Amino acid sequence: MTSTPIPEQMTAIILESYDGADALRVVQRPVPRPGPKEVLVKVAAASINPSDLMFILGLYGFKKPTPTVPGFEGSGTVVAVGSGTGLMGRYLAGKRVACVTQQDGLWAEYTTTTVNYALPLDEAVSLEQGAMAVVNPLTAVALIDLAKKAGHQTVINTAAASALGLMLHRLGHQQGIEVVGIVRRPEQVAYLKQQGMTHVLDSSDPDFHRQIRDLCHQRHIHLAFDAVGGELPRQLLDAMPQHSRVTVYGGLSQQPVQVDVGALIFEDKRVDGFWLPPWVGQKNLLQNFLVWRRAQKLMLTTLKTEIRQRYPLAKTPQAVRDYESQMTGGKVLIMPGER
Amino acid sequence: MTSTPIPEQMTAIILESYDGADALRVVQRPVPRPGPKEVLVKVAAASINPSDLMFILGLYGFKKPTPTVPGFEGSGTVVAVGSGTGLMGRYLAGKRVACVTQQDGLWAEYTTTTVNYALPLDEAVSLEQGAMAVVNPLTAVALIDLAKKAGHQTVINTAAASALGLMLHRLGHQQGIEVVGIVRRPEQVAYLKQQGMTHVLDSSDPDFHRQIRDLCHQRHIHLAFDAVGGELPRQLLDAMPQHSRVTVYGGLSQQPVQVDVGALIFEDKRVDGFWLPPWVGQKNLLQNFLVWRRAQKLMLTTLKTEIRQRYPLAKTPQAVRDYESQMTGGKVLIMPGER
Repeated sequence: MTSTPIPEQMTAIILESYDGADALRVVQRPVPRPGPKEVLVKVAAASINPSDLMFILGLYGFKKPTPTVPGFEGSGTVVAVGSGTGLMGRYLAGKRVACVTQQDGLWAEYTTTTVNYALPLDEAVSLEQGAMAVVNPLTAVALIDLAKKAGHQTVINTAAASALGLMLHRLGHQQGIEVVGIVRRPEQVAYLKQQGMTHVLDSSDPDFHRQIRDLCHQRHIHLAFDAVGGELPRQLLDAMPQHSRVTVYGGLSQQPVQVDVGALIFEDKRVDGFWLPPWVGQKNLLQNFLVWRRAQKLMLTTLKTEIRQRYPLAKTPQAVRDYESQMTGGKVLIMPGER
Repeated sequence: MTSTPIPEQMTAIILESYDGADALRVVQRPVPRPGPKEVLVKVAAASINPSDLMFILGLYGFKKPTPTVPGFEGSGTVVAVGSGTGLMGRYLAGKRVACVTQQDGLWAEYTTTTVNYALPLDEAVSLEQGAMAVVNPLTAVALIDLAKKAGHQTVINTAAASALGLMLHRLGHQQGIEVVGIVRRPEQVAYLKQQGMTHVLDSSDPDFHRQIRDLCHQRHIHLAFDAVGGELPRQLLDAMPQHSRVTVYGGLSQQPVQVDVGALIFEDKRVDGFWLPPWVGQKNLLQNFLVWRRAQKLMLTTLKTEIRQRYPLAKTPQAVRDYESQMTGGKVLIMPGER
């Protein structure tokens, strides 16, 4: 099927225990074989997302037995297909794909995933953009969708200088939803204004509380998306009018969410959460296909992501530490396809 | 209308500032006159509820300009009716009523309230029971109603040794909803078991976490009512299966509610609140009348409340401190009708 033979051994990153970047090791291990309904992907690029950081710390929605290969998302070429993959498998063979996996992950030269999780890339989308094509773009689509369906015209988003933050802003703008960005450092305000965001507030500003409160009341903001946790959701709930909601989709501060009892009881405010896999799982195959087409069309414009730094696979621990220390200003990619 | 003339002056308790029991004073002030659509009630007994404690500390859903007379709930006799009270006013004149007010309150010899908030008492219900007939009984009816409508068979309730906790247990039992009680001291477990509660857990027990987790999974408990706040809602969310909810209706610990980010995101858990006034406000007059009839019928049995201590009006500050120091084992009543 492919002219390059598949080797027996590959370089991979394994997580030895749930202790973060310190527990990552570069090892040689056998190239996996695709099982039934699976494809084998030769990885070109893999992204590092906040969900990967939570995973390696044991804070994600599930743990796998260690040692395990991390990396939920990336891109590459389908080089072998397993049994029972049918028409889709034959179609994907040799194709460039974006790919996500909940099995052994993409921080390796090869990975397997179920055929449904290998999404063919449009010609115009590069493998690098393809490595960031699923988690953030679909999360942006999902959150804007939630805001629209609940009738909101303006929403808040925290960690607004992240790749996802920028996508939310641009996609929201396109869909008629204004996103007010909250950042945690003054220099990010300038950066986001330069990116075209009209309303950006810095939560470290001593006047933040008054600013966000005024804005929420002027614009009737009743929904905030939060990726930070800790004190911030409490401040947002306090700033928004009665009957408001904070939907938490990340926990960058690694602090539990705080909520004032009075806000819950007397102001009918509430806190819930968003996770992408169940959102995708709720939709049928056709709906997901349509979401994917839409996301791909936007990939070159609205959902395009800047790349800040590329690392070869063997330098993955360093790449993870780099990303941990600066999660804004462009993505950090791991490039198993490069030596 | 009444044979006893209404005096010019009365004894009342005023709150000078939102500093709790220390800011309560015994004063003489003019007896209020009922305005349009209001009635004047000669107060027989007034209750002290957790909501009163929150109010005098400035933590309630609203503040009134100080000085103000606290006391949201009590009972007494209608001794004068204002203009525009119509049929209802004529019916109530001279009647014994349970009464709530959001104006100057019931810790006084006389109070005014809108005609809709004076609820005629059945002959069999004493003025003392009538002084505790609205806030707790209707909250119990509302919470059991919420649990039933959402299809729960077993729910958790915290601060289970309170008057409301006991009502919830008994009303739930009658309505086919089992209430698992959580208390914060070992001696309360024995007390509640003696009251017929089957499942009572002590959150100070080192094994509490395992016990509540096992119980939640065995009995598929997905809903907890919380009156404590702080760490407890977090523990309850953690113990319950996916898609669970904590509904907060009180904040006895005076700590903000804590929630793990992972519970919100990965387990679809959420936190919201319950407040009685909007629940009552959502219903029409007939529905509220039916709820009131039902609550009164239950007052002599299921919703009967023990009285631990009675205080004359002038000793209200002491009564409040007594209640603060022990909120279980029966209610503390203020008796403006007694010298």
